[in-house]
Amino acid sequence: MRFLSACGLQKTDKIPVWFMRQAGRSLPEYRALRKTGDILAAIRNPEVAYEITMQPVHRHKVDAAILFCDIVVPLAAIDPSISIVPGTGPVISSPFRGRSDLARIRDLDPEEDIPYVLETVKALSNQEVPLIGFAGAPFTLASYLIEGGPSRDHARTKALMIDDPQLFQDLLSRLARLSSSFLDAQIQAGARAVQLFDSWVGTLSKQDYVAHVQAHTREIFENVAVPTIHYGLGTDHLIESISQTGPRVISLDWRTPLDLARTRYGSRFAIQGNLDPSVLLASPEAAFAQVRSTLIKAGPEPGYIFNLGHGVLPETDPEILTEIVKIVHDHDVK
Amino acid sequence: MRFLSACGLQKTDKIPVWFMRQAGRSLPEYRALRKTGDILAAIRNPEVAYEITMQPVHRHKVDAAILFCDIVVPLAAIDPSISIVPGTGPVISSPFRGRSDLARIRDLDPEEDIPYVLETVKALSNQEVPLIGFAGAPFTLASYLIEGGPSRDHARTKALMIDDPQLFQDLLSRLARLSSSFLDAQIQAGARAVQLFDSWVGTLSKQDYVAHVQAHTREIFENVAVPTIHYGLGTDHLIESISQTGPRVISLDWRTPLDLARTRYGSRFAIQGNLDPSVLLASPEAAFAQVRSTLIKAGPEPGYIFNLGHGVLPETDPEILTEIVKIVHDHDVK
Repeated sequence: MRFLSACGLQKTDKIPVWFMRQAGRSLPEYRALRKTGDILAAIRNPEVAYEITMQPVHRHKVDAAILFCDIVVPLAAIDPSISIVPGTGPVISSPFRGRSDLARIRDLDPEEDIPYVLETVKALSNQEVPLIGFAGAPFTLASYLIEGGPSRDHARTKALMIDDPQLFQDLLSRLARLSSSFLDAQIQAGARAVQLFDSWVGTLSKQDYVAHVQAHTREIFENVAVPTIHYGLGTDHLIESISQTGPRVISLDWRTPLDLARTRYGSRFAIQGNLDPSVLLASPEAAFAQVRSTLIKAGPEPGYIFNLGHGVLPETDPEILTEIVKIVHDHDVK
Repeated sequence: MRFLSACGLQKTDKIPVWFMRQAGRSLPEYRALRKTGDILAAIRNPEVAYEITMQPVHRHKVDAAILFCDIVVPLAAIDPSISIVPGTGPVISSPFRGRSDLARIRDLDPEEDIPYVLETVKALSNQEVPLIGFAGAPFTLASYLIEGGPSRDHARTKALMIDDPQLFQDLLSRLARLSSSFLDAQIQAGARAVQLFDSWVGTLSKQDYVAHVQAHTREIFENVAVPTIHYGLGTDHLIESISQTGPRVISLDWRTPLDLARTRYGSRFAIQGNLDPSVLLASPEAAFAQVRSTLIKAGPEPGYIFNLGHGVLPETDPEILTEIVKIVHDHDVK
């Protein structure tokens, strides 16, 4: 399986490719299946979640499936104040405000709390491509809990971080345990690799990342037996510090030059990325030229996985994605 | 005037300080004056705009006033499809879609199009502190025109950029001319320094910044006779390229370590910044500790202006801002 080989810095016959948010609103078959229903309801239905996970694998022939799920699923399973609002994202009706809220983040009992995830993963574990499980990283999960939903500035999160660093540590520690359990459950059920999404950690300075976040992310990676991938948006200034948390693969956005990252980190880490998903809204010719340029920057060394620098935008034409998979697979890796 | 001296890398008796968005919703006297009225109406009323500009100078004793205005004002003056919607920001009811839309961006005739700005600036030009004028940088203005309003991904902007680089160049060229005229008019009327806001350019890779944006920003700075400041959010990966556009002062957000920037660029450019405005939502003690730490990182060399890394958040307690000005002014600069 070329995706797993690339994670392990092994030579592959073709460059492996998958897309963040490959299962989602860019696919008409997804929109037909989901309609306007609650996304958490779809995630909690193993037949639906299985089908949505496999849709892009069948259509695009990508080299990995990624579980149809959401980073707030384990939190929502233990805290009924969390929902996912269409067009908004995760909403926490009763945000995290102080030490007494820590108790709300109890340990996850996967068999009891998220049996539907285990069932979906098991059904997906014997497909032609490996299944990637995933979890939210402690900082990103904490930001949702503290802000009460998506946020542009993450101001309350950072204010709590400097006001009460010990409480912040305790919160991230609990969230790290939650995410570890969530990842472990997916691995036990058959996920062959896992991606940790610290999507919003790029809002921090390096100094704050190292002081308040890094150790919790490292703790998660230390306890995972399958290949691990770290993803964060706008984290170019944090790459050195992120690399010290011990992922097997670093997933880059387009702000980090791929050729420099491959030269700099390519022998220690596999690199995933980093085409700007906005490019896929351009004409096919322009988009494909950028794909080819990305492949050239990735260079000939093993340990590279083609992906976008962020999730597929909902308005993306899925035929462009299918064609990109072909271009990546046709790229000469000799 | 210590703000202007610092822009010129001259030694000052105290470190100068002002805050991006110091005139705004954090001040009760601003909310009282503005009420729920249209922000463009307030900008078009010289008495109101004068008063709002001076409110933070009187209250906080900052070392510079910044004109109460908005980066889309010159665009709105020549294109009636542009408005500013409370809680949203600039909205363009008929977004930029193709070459035929270029004609909508005609040359600015300041006396005819924005007489109220000239009147406000003239009234502000003889105050105890210098007035900073400002304009939007071509990329950031283009993003509003193309997206039709604020955007998280700037996907259409980037798609147009790679689909039709010549049209994108032509658009940015017109916007550079518009911003140059706007800045020049403010300088003629009495602004003593100007800040160029390329707030959203951090969404670009360095390669795209250099290929599509850098020359237009340079063109603006080349034609300005007073000290110039460049500001962009999340531009740590672009600082080298931004410095090549020739600003006198680089305004940093908190992602760029201030001590490193001062060491690296401090002899060629003045540096402004870079406290995270989120910090001001923490307890006063925690916030003030971060202010002191910022001052230490700035070091003893001249050419430093204390500011935030982004605008004052509306929920900020204005008394914290007043106290920060005192702390900065009390800081030993010997």
